[in-house]
Amino acid sequence: MSDPEPYRYLTIARRIADEIEAGLYREGERLPSVRLLRGTYEISATTAMRVLVELEQDGLAEARPRSGFYVRTRTPPGLAHVPAPTTTAPAPRPADVNGLIERIFKANASAEGILPFGAAEIDEALLPHKELAVAVARTVREEAAGLLAYGPTAGDPRLRRRLARLLGERGVAVAPQEIVVTAGETDALSLALLALTRPGDTVAVESPCFFGILQWIEALGLRAVEIATDPHRGIDLDELERVADTVPIAALALNPTFHNPFGFAMPADRMRGLLDLAEKRDLPIVEDDVYGDLHHGSRPRRPLKSFDKTGRVLYCSSFSKTLAPGFRVGWCVPGRHAEAFERARAPRNAGVATLTQRALARYLDGRAYGRHLRELRGLFASQAPRVRALVSEAFPPGTRITEPEGGFVFWVEVPPPFDALDFHEAALREGISTAPGPIFSASGGFRDAFRLSMGRRLSVDEERGIRRLGMIAHRLCEAG
Amino acid sequence: MSDPEPYRYLTIARRIADEIEAGLYREGERLPSVRLLRGTYEISATTAMRVLVELEQDGLAEARPRSGFYVRTRTPPGLAHVPAPTTTAPAPRPADVNGLIERIFKANASAEGILPFGAAEIDEALLPHKELAVAVARTVREEAAGLLAYGPTAGDPRLRRRLARLLGERGVAVAPQEIVVTAGETDALSLALLALTRPGDTVAVESPCFFGILQWIEALGLRAVEIATDPHRGIDLDELERVADTVPIAALALNPTFHNPFGFAMPADRMRGLLDLAEKRDLPIVEDDVYGDLHHGSRPRRPLKSFDKTGRVLYCSSFSKTLAPGFRVGWCVPGRHAEAFERARAPRNAGVATLTQRALARYLDGRAYGRHLRELRGLFASQAPRVRALVSEAFPPGTRITEPEGGFVFWVEVPPPFDALDFHEAALREGISTAPGPIFSASGGFRDAFRLSMGRRLSVDEERGIRRLGMIAHRLCEAG
Repeated sequence: MSDPEPYRYLTIARRIADEIEAGLYREGERLPSVRLLRGTYEISATTAMRVLVELEQDGLAEARPRSGFYVRTRTPPGLAHVPAPTTTAPAPRPADVNGLIERIFKANASAEGILPFGAAEIDEALLPHKELAVAVARTVREEAAGLLAYGPTAGDPRLRRRLARLLGERGVAVAPQEIVVTAGETDALSLALLALTRPGDTVAVESPCFFGILQWIEALGLRAVEIATDPHRGIDLDELERVADTVPIAALALNPTFHNPFGFAMPADRMRGLLDLAEKRDLPIVEDDVYGDLHHGSRPRRPLKSFDKTGRVLYCSSFSKTLAPGFRVGWCVPGRHAEAFERARAPRNAGVATLTQRALARYLDGRAYGRHLRELRGLFASQAPRVRALVSEAFPPGTRITEPEGGFVFWVEVPPPFDALDFHEAALREGISTAPGPIFSASGGFRDAFRLSMGRRLSVDEERGIRRLGMIAHRLCEAG
Repeated sequence: MSDPEPYRYLTIARRIADEIEAGLYREGERLPSVRLLRGTYEISATTAMRVLVELEQDGLAEARPRSGFYVRTRTPPGLAHVPAPTTTAPAPRPADVNGLIERIFKANASAEGILPFGAAEIDEALLPHKELAVAVARTVREEAAGLLAYGPTAGDPRLRRRLARLLGERGVAVAPQEIVVTAGETDALSLALLALTRPGDTVAVESPCFFGILQWIEALGLRAVEIATDPHRGIDLDELERVADTVPIAALALNPTFHNPFGFAMPADRMRGLLDLAEKRDLPIVEDDVYGDLHHGSRPRRPLKSFDKTGRVLYCSSFSKTLAPGFRVGWCVPGRHAEAFERARAPRNAGVATLTQRALARYLDGRAYGRHLRELRGLFASQAPRVRALVSEAFPPGTRITEPEGGFVFWVEVPPPFDALDFHEAALREGISTAPGPIFSASGGFRDAFRLSMGRRLSVDEERGIRRLGMIAHRLCEAG
């Protein structure tokens, strides 16, 4: 870096971020103005503005019209606090979640007409049925001939072009041929792990992390090492570095934007720090970005892949949280690991259903997806404070709940003697599914927490459901 | 078996089968009449008839109208012989085929406008586009609401009911809930292997065998032991038993009806013997039945699963060879291994695309599939002798070619100094793809053979293609 000037705004933004973290600026307090920053740091107005926008982008500041930038208020008075960063005693261990998950989801599925707060699924009623039906109908009418044969195993060329454009909008510059279409995101994640590891290898994960990655770690005979994670800022890079000093890590599997179950977007400076560390240690990273399009703020948050200059991130996503879970269309950008990814994929011989790929490509031709995403984001952003308020009111005092910056899941921590597995069973008996904390951990932790999914409109039934969950938690805490 | 009588026809049929094998009856010779059998064995006319039908069912006899049963003529005069049974020196070894297969199929795919004799694919032109397009269009019109959400992970209930009915027609009595829908058959095969094995385990396969099973054996870190295989009657049960005496076998992976690449249907008596052996040794069996609907004779041939009384066969198939490869819909009936299969499948969380499943269920409602299969069978049965005749004429003397009883692939053995890999490259340069013998073996054998696929109408271009292959083989043999 011969010319440090282009990055000066980052240095200053990091310093102010540290001051916010240290409590020098309190929540809701006004940050230095552009004029003040210019004077203090001897920088241009443009650079000063970039400092403030960077802080906003990192979720630390919020702009108020005609007033300036303020430290973002995370917890309005009267609301439950956000969980503290998790701590771990990091040692690799085999994941042992499939048995528990099987029991939990079998129980959830067997209950008729339940309130599905357990699965991170988007309600069918929020999906663009009509537009997609039109896209399918046009596809079969106009392209019937090509739909029945095996398509190119890496994916339909037209869909890959559309995906490259969408990824470009998220700051990920890739050519269509760098994208491999997979059978949903879970397929992409498993192939990425297969490409990078051999049985017995260790994969570093967030704590808590999406249980699907633990399921694959278990199924592939790998070991997980859990890294302490901040509910706003993601994994603890210092701890990651300490772990990497003592344990050979084959890959990192992370879900930085927006994290399931914590809901954070890892700040850009952390992402850069993570990539620097990965570069230094030559660690490949499997990035799960399945909630990436569902930001609650006015601006999108960039995925890790958008900062990846050396192709070490295997970027995985799908349309399952926004558009058509039942189409089973996901993708991976394997970067420099493309050959290993291809080798892992080779025994499939065939790719993904041609019809659903082409119908999606057709739907993505127009402006419908952008419009649809704006509606979804508006809904999830607007009802998130209400979910938090309901949990705060209904659950025992001392309950904590995350403040997601995107997506539609919430992590709820309840004070002792709450037990998430007992809670799951009790709630299920009353017709409500939940996802208990221990499935988000390879070490069986988080028995004091559960994930509450709200991929649906928060109406009277849902509000009543949350209140009922609160009553169950009260009952368990009193009985314990 | 307290009452041996119901099985008496089998004992007699086996005796006559042995006599045919031993050459006591020659090809084309008339077999004993019903009257003669009645007298010889003191049995009823019905039992005598069942003996003859059993021999026909096993591919050993053929009925001639108003004349009786004759030993089936395998090789008309002037045609190339059928390959001899393969021999092996059975020792478990890691499969090492993915590298070669990748090179072969990458080369095949990169050549534009080639004659695709390499891949066992059915030509798009033979698929029922219009009917399936109508099924898709009706599905989106009438069921749009349910298509976008995740469906039941084990498969769409209506499709499973249709599949249960189809399997019933093939002699496999299963309830819809015993069937698991998978992303094509390759997915079913891999899950079945995952369910039965751990890395390092040994799987017994036919020699030669479908290379896809070897790809999974390699990808899952398993070992293959190849069992000698007869081009008419399938694997050598004595050798299998000897191998099982010395090597712990975790599973058998077989493709008995109709075998790829040999084209045989394993005779019913062999199937019963195989199941007896599997019972005695407690061996699970993964059965690939993807060509099962494509019999050339007038009657269907039963899959192994239809004789399986104890649920030890994991039956796998799909619509990829008959209907819609691009839909990626297959299935498995895991039998008594259902729980292990579910555990292997658990990390997927989601099943197969709802739209393609429902469209197939709708298509299968009517009589279209039966009609379509009759057409396909008629085509493949009627052009098989012509393919054999063309190969006999065009290839060097001493060339052997299988006489498939179903499906659309042929195995061609060419006398020394023929080399299948050189042949593959030379043919590709002239615009014809082939599948060289070594990819059908874990031990790199079969360099003297290749698989010729004819999942398409044999017209002028295809005939010219076979003749050109023959010229290339002549050239290589002369140069060698």
